[in-house]
Order: sequence, then C-alpha cells, then structure tokens
Amino acid sequence: MRFSQLFFSTFKEVPKDAEVLSHQLMLRAGMIRKVAAGIYSMMPLGLRVLRKFEAIVREEMNRSGAQEVLMPSMIPSELWKRSSRWDHYGRELLRIKDRHGKEFCYGPTHEEVITELANHYIKSYKQLPINAYQIQTKFRDEIRPRFGLMRGREFLMKDAYSFHASWESLDQTYRDMAATYRRIFQRAGLKFKAVKADSGAIGGDHSSEFMVTADTGEDAIMECLSCDYAANLEAAESHHKGQEMGDIETKTWVYMADQKPISVILKSEDTINEIKLRKALNAQVLYLSETTPETGLDAIVDLRLSGLGYEKLADLRNVKSGDICPHCHQGRLQEIRGIEVGHIFQLGDKYSHSMTATYVDEAGQDKPFLMGCYGIGIGRSIAASIEQNNDKNGIIWPVALAPYLVDIIATSTADETLNTCAESLYGELLGENIEVILDDRDESAGLKFKDADLIGIPFHVIVGKKFLSEGLIEFKSRQSGAVTMLKPEAVLGHIQTLLRAAKD
Amino acid sequence: MRFSQLFFSTFKEVPKDAEVLSHQLMLRAGMIRKVAAGIYSMMPLGLRVLRKFEAIVREEMNRSGAQEVLMPSMIPSELWKRSSRWDHYGRELLRIKDRHGKEFCYGPTHEEVITELANHYIKSYKQLPINAYQIQTKFRDEIRPRFGLMRGREFLMKDAYSFHASWESLDQTYRDMAATYRRIFQRAGLKFKAVKADSGAIGGDHSSEFMVTADTGEDAIMECLSCDYAANLEAAESHHKGQEMGDIETKTWVYMADQKPISVILKSEDTINEIKLRKALNAQVLYLSETTPETGLDAIVDLRLSGLGYEKLADLRNVKSGDICPHCHQGRLQEIRGIEVGHIFQLGDKYSHSMTATYVDEAGQDKPFLMGCYGIGIGRSIAASIEQNNDKNGIIWPVALAPYLVDIIATSTADETLNTCAESLYGELLGENIEVILDDRDESAGLKFKDADLIGIPFHVIVGKKFLSEGLIEFKSRQSGAVTMLKPEAVLGHIQTLLRAAKD
Repeated sequence: MRFSQLFFSTFKEVPKDAEVLSHQLMLRAGMIRKVAAGIYSMMPLGLRVLRKFEAIVREEMNRSGAQEVLMPSMIPSELWKRSSRWDHYGRELLRIKDRHGKEFCYGPTHEEVITELANHYIKSYKQLPINAYQIQTKFRDEIRPRFGLMRGREFLMKDAYSFHASWESLDQTYRDMAATYRRIFQRAGLKFKAVKADSGAIGGDHSSEFMVTADTGEDAIMECLSCDYAANLEAAESHHKGQEMGDIETKTWVYMADQKPISVILKSEDTINEIKLRKALNAQVLYLSETTPETGLDAIVDLRLSGLGYEKLADLRNVKSGDICPHCHQGRLQEIRGIEVGHIFQLGDKYSHSMTATYVDEAGQDKPFLMGCYGIGIGRSIAASIEQNNDKNGIIWPVALAPYLVDIIATSTADETLNTCAESLYGELLGENIEVILDDRDESAGLKFKDADLIGIPFHVIVGKKFLSEGLIEFKSRQSGAVTMLKPEAVLGHIQTLLRAAKD
Repeated sequence: MRFSQLFFSTFKEVPKDAEVLSHQLMLRAGMIRKVAAGIYSMMPLGLRVLRKFEAIVREEMNRSGAQEVLMPSMIPSELWKRSSRWDHYGRELLRIKDRHGKEFCYGPTHEEVITELANHYIKSYKQLPINAYQIQTKFRDEIRPRFGLMRGREFLMKDAYSFHASWESLDQTYRDMAATYRRIFQRAGLKFKAVKADSGAIGGDHSSEFMVTADTGEDAIMECLSCDYAANLEAAESHHKGQEMGDIETKTWVYMADQKPISVILKSEDTINEIKLRKALNAQVLYLSETTPETGLDAIVDLRLSGLGYEKLADLRNVKSGDICPHCHQGRLQEIRGIEVGHIFQLGDKYSHSMTATYVDEAGQDKPFLMGCYGIGIGRSIAASIEQNNDKNGIIWPVALAPYLVDIIATSTADETLNTCAESLYGELLGENIEVILDDRDESAGLKFKDADLIGIPFHVIVGKKFLSEGLIEFKSRQSGAVTMLKPEAVLGHIQTLLRAAKD
C-alpha cells in the first residue's frame, strides 16, 4: 500500500469526548471515525488491526474444535420471551419493531438463538458435545457509551456456546476454552490475567474473566503477591483469621431484597459487595433502601463480625489491598486495574431448561442440554492493546496486530535517488509478502516520521541524507527506538530476522 | 471434520414457505435455519460456502486496489436527512429509536456514511481516486421476504463506493469494477451475464447489473441472439424500423406525473415500461390514475406511433422476444430469466452535492466528489449458484464454493477394515490440506450417500464391498455421477489432478 492512496488522514487534535488514550490515538491515527455515540466506522488501518486479531481468534477457536456459525443481529421477541430475558434485560436491550409491528431486539448476546438451533439440529447424545462460535456485530444500548471501541454500543464480539450431555464434558470444554483464550491473548501480544469472576446462580469456580492489565482499566482485580490467585473485585475473597477482638466500630445499611427490608452490618471501615450480598440473600431484586435502620429487622452480618453474636453471617465486604490471600493464606492481596476482554462461563441448563431444548440420552430419555458460553470483545481487545502499548508519540503495535509491519519513508519525494531506492525496497518487501506501506506523499520528512510513530508501525525504513552521503538506510524500531544503519541489500534480511524473532 | 461432530442434521421435509429450490435445499442440507421471516442463521456448512465466496470477493476487490472498511449497521437519522433519503426511502427502511429517543435506521446501504467519511478524510484531489468497500450486514424490511437467502431482510452484502475528481477517473473505476465483477463470478463458477440496467437520473450507459442466468430468476433479461447486447427488461430497447403502416390499434392510460394527469398512448399489443415513462416525463412521483382518458389532456406517445401526428414521442414500451436488437439492428431479442447478484452504478455528485462533501481541486476550489457505487449480494450469490447447479438429489457445488471438497464414506462403521482404510485416507488428505469430511456416523450407507449428494460435496470416496473383495475404492464425481475404481494409494493423486483441473 502507498500512503498517497490510503483512505485516511492523521489529526493533531481530538474531540474532547475522547477520554482514554486508545480512543484518542485511534481517532488521531485515522483508524476509526465516530458515526454516533458509541458507534464507529473502522477505516482501513483500524480494520486491518481488527482483522488480524479476528484471524487469531478464528484460528485458535477452530484449533480447539469449535465450529463457526453466523447468527442474525435481529432476534424476534418470541425467542427472548421463552428465556424470560425479554422482560428482565432492561434498557440496554435495543428493542425494534418491523413494518408489521413485530417486535425484535438487536442481539446483545445469542444464547436464545443458539439454544433453538441446538434443539433443532441435535437429537441425540451421540452428537454431543458441540461448541459453536461466531464473530458477529452486537448492540448494547449503554446509557453512556464512551472510550471508543472500549465501550461502544455497536461492537464486534466472538461469542461461543457449547452443549453437553454431562458436567464432566462441560468442564472439559470450559478448560479447553480457558487454554484457548490464553493462546489467543498471548499470540496477540497482550499482557493479561485470568481471574476468578462472579459465577451468578451456578456458583463454584465456573466463571473466569480475562483481563488485560492496564492502569486505565475500568475493573479492579485483586491478586496475591505470593501465589497465582487473582479475582475480579466482585468475586474476590480474603482469608479471615477468625473472630476479631477489641473495640469494633460497625455500620448498618438497610437493603430491600425482593421487597423485604433487611439490615446489613459490616465493620465501618469496610464497603459492601452487593454481588456477594445478593448471593447470600439469594435475592432477585436488591437495592439500597433510604430508610434508617430500625431494630427488629432481620439482619445479615459480615463474617468478620462473628463475635457479635448474630445468626446470619456471610462474606459481604469488598476485599482490600493488604488482605490475606484466601488461596495460600500467606501472601497479601493487592489491587491492580484491568480491562475485561474475555469471559468464560458455565450456564448449566439455565437456557435449555426454560426453552425446553433437549436431546435424547443413552437411556432414551429427553434431557435439557448443559451449556457453557465464552465471549471475547474483538474491538475492545485491540483498544486494550493500545492502552498497554503506547508512548507520547503514539501507538506501539505488537507485530501480531500491526496494520503494516514496515513503513518505508523517503525523506524527500523531490529527490530522484531517494525515491528510486525507496521504491526498490518497497518492491523487494512486497515480493516477499511482507506487509509494507510506502510513504510516497509529497509531505515533509518530519510529518512522515510523526505519522509512522502515531500509527505505531513496528519498523521504519528511512531513506534520507545518510543514503545520499554513505549509501546507508536508517532502520528504526518503533518499540525500542533503536536505530541501525544498514546497506539497502541488508534491509530485507534484517526485517525477516526480526519477524522470525517476534513469532517465537 | 467428522460428520459425527458436525453441528448439523439433514431433513427430508421442508416447510411449505420454502418456494424456491435453493431455499429448500439449503434448509434440507442443514446449511441455514430460519429465525424469523427473511432472517436466517448460517450453520457451519452454509457458512463455509458463504466464506468461500466472501474470500473470492475480498481477493478480487483488493487486487483492484479497493480498500476494505467496516461501517456500522446503525446509522443516525441526521446523516440520512442530509441526503433526503430519510423522508423518501419508504417502509423498507427499518427505523429504530434508542433509549434516549434518538432516531436511527438499520443501514440498507451506506452512501451517506461513506460520503461523510470521504469528506472528513479526503482534503485534496491528490488523495483521489479512492475506492472503499465493506462486506457487511444490511437490513431491508421487505414486505414479503421469501426465497431464503435470495431475498432476505437481514443479508450480507459487499458494497463499494468510489470517489473521484473527474468523470474520466469515475469511468475508469467503473470499468475496473465491471472487470473485477466478471472475475469474481467466473471464479465462483457462476454462469452470468452483465446487462445494461436503468441508470436513473444520470442517464447514459452508467449502470450494469450482473445476472446469474436461471429459469427460476425473478428478473427478465432481453438478450440479442446475434450480438452481445443484453439488458434488464426495465432498460431494454429495440430497433424501431420507422413509422408503421396500416391499421394500428392503440390503447390509452392516464398517469399522474408529479400530481399532473397525462395520457399515455401505446400500441394495444404493448405494455408500458414505467421506468422509461418516468424518465421521459422527468417525474419524481408517478402512478397509474384510475380516471378514464379524456380529450384535452397532455399526451405522451410511444415512438412506434409516430405516424399518428402526436408531438411528444418517446420509447415507452417493454420490449418483447422477437424484437430487433437496438445494437446490431440484425438479431432478434429473446427473453431469458436471471437473478441479480451484482450492480455497478455511477452516482455522480448526487450524495456529495446534497451532503456538501468536497475536496480542494488543483485550482484551489472546493468541488463535490464524483462517486460510483458497486454492490454484490453475498448470500444471494450462493443461493443463485444452487439454482444453477442442482439435480433431483440435491446441490452440486462447484469446487470454488463447496463447503468440503471430499466426503469419505465407510459403508459400515461396524467393519474395522473399512473404518481403518477410511481413517487412513482421511488422515492422508488432511495432511495435504485438502478440505475433507469423514462420514463416521453410525448410520446406513444409504443415508450417507444421500447426504453426500444433498449437501453437494464434489467428490465422494466410498470405502465399501469392493474394498473388501478387491481392495478398491469407489470414487464418485457429484457433478458427472461418474464412478472410478481406484487403489487406496491412488486416491490422493486422483483428487489433486481434479482440483488442479478445476482451478484452470
């Protein structure tokens, strides 16, 4: 590709509503363009990055034995009524009426559609297990979409759904998916952590999130400094050393749990974890009441207050940095920040039961499928990569995601000698199928250098003064900033060596 | 892939609403599943076919120098109001309100979005021409969606839009796209015709449709039996031999053209072509009036009635089989049926003018872009392939689109000798990266043969009785039905020869 023909421009300024760095940099680099709040067009440079990550996801999902399908974005309300989600999903569900007044939603996930497909196509336990995935456009009508691709309304997601005749089989696929996700994020060059997440109604260790670690992340992760324990703050626990002595200050809140008021008592230095509270109370609808605590109400009390003589005790607090690890009982927990890019989850028969989706088991009995689901945010993952890989000059793409690997810059297009050399290197790299872009624009060398840094192309090949005086090419690594002087005939070999190293 | 693990089933019966063969066969072969009227899930076998065609389209678009982008499905009404399409598009436009009451449509095409992108990124004539395409999900709220993927509501389309500083440049890209489309449909193994289509307001020879010829096609095409003239019935003309003599019976209709009544007079044996009439009258809104013809009304008369002394003459009729070709003036026209799979079109400054999308030309002046647009129906193309390639037993995929190239069938899974041979052939073909599926299901040989035919896999490798008695494999071509007996060690070579032949 030649920059002179590329559908793009770079920008110095970005709109004020671009708060996070990845959003700012993708706008400035001409990779994405806002169409409406939380809705973006992907321009050629941005789409190339997206497609590279998509290809990694597809390869690894296929390698795991999952099968690709493609479900529609428009889902009829009937299907969602069968799972009861039509009534419970809330306003993030974009509801649509067609010309005949028939109700649809723009699918935010596809449990209902895939469960109906499984019910239609899978008759016997012999056809199980099945793991089907799609890479497809979804919509969630976030009240405040922001952060560019990080929290868009229309977004690309890889969602997979598995169907099983036994919990053992579901466990196996769940573990396979965890391993697959590790390979995906590793290959994409992301620094990440798999953390324990809240598993909702099913309980147990059946939900993990994959978090790209970044100071700008929206999620809090508690990790042990001694062992490999890590959990989303929502799910994190800590080791409790038994009854605390001495003067303990407490604080009481009143919550409404399924219409019934209850006092919730914690040490006053602690904060309530509503996910834990909901689970402890087994409540569907839970919210903080504005009434003041009264005596006589039922009370639920945090574990750490077991000495106060209350009956109903549970782990109700958010853990804090410095708490003791619940796994090794030795190390201290510390809070780090992360961006959730993947989530794997055991659903059990939640959907197959409510939608009566069954197969015939070995004994000839109809049984509801056991299910798992496995998501990866495609756009969010590339935004997360930028949050992890940038400097004051712009993006620093890892080789695995870069839109182009090499940027060839002739410092002056007016100079025939420089142009000829740049064109010849361009032709040589293209001939070796190396993804190269030639900056043949009639612009200053300074602007070309800036754009190469901003866009984050890993290797810059500069044909300038040194070529005229000494016949040498300046080879710059975007990541290290290191510059190597090479003869033109050594450039290809140098790049090939670096690309091989990046693959290992 | 193994059939025992494939997410699919075949069916003997299909729902009554599946009227056309391609729809029936894709349902029966487990390739697509209806989710709602005109809305389908693509199952693994169907999606593989779709992706193969998509890959051909992408390769050829890239080869032509077009750049891939990805625009959103949800388009804010503001953009469509700037082009006036928000008010004029009618009920096929699916209109949506988000949680804040903001209006959107589910994009049926993307002229407005891409024009805004061009305006944002393209400042100077130096950046032109640009041709940008996407392969993306669209929605048209058809009143009677039918025929499966042929006329769905939610569908996958390749749409491209080009931007130019001169008509010469637009003409060049238009011709490049015509050549690219020919390569795409040729590579996909489709028999097709490029036909002249109505070019709307622009006029001239600036719109062509690519029609897959099939008796079941919805479109009428008039082609010359002597030369290469071919046109959509809407646009087809015929050679007019001058004033007709003798007794001529005429018929008169009254139309309302932009609120004004007009008499339309044709030979009584002819039928009115409303596209031609609209153009002749330069009318925005045109419809047949229910009033009876009166004298005193303005009249427009078909060319063939020039002898009647009317002033306003124009070509107003639908041509018929047997008419004389307007191109060579020798051959007769005949009507054939076709399925529109592609359309290329010169838009001129229709959108750039109304949306004030401009670049700076060489003289430093702001100029609206000249634009072209180029569409291919992805799902419709594969349905069209089935309409052209089938027999009473099912689909006959060309090698370029087949979901798998080879189906290996052991006639009895109970027989260890047969299984071992089938597995060994399977491993051998996989090792050579040949797309092969092994029918390892515990089912009868008859059902496996039927499924192989129904799904339309080009080559069937049957390990059965002849292997037990003579050590020979039955090799069947789905297309010709020809059976060749081969030693197991000759199977790979035989397939490789056939695949090479299919590529030439």
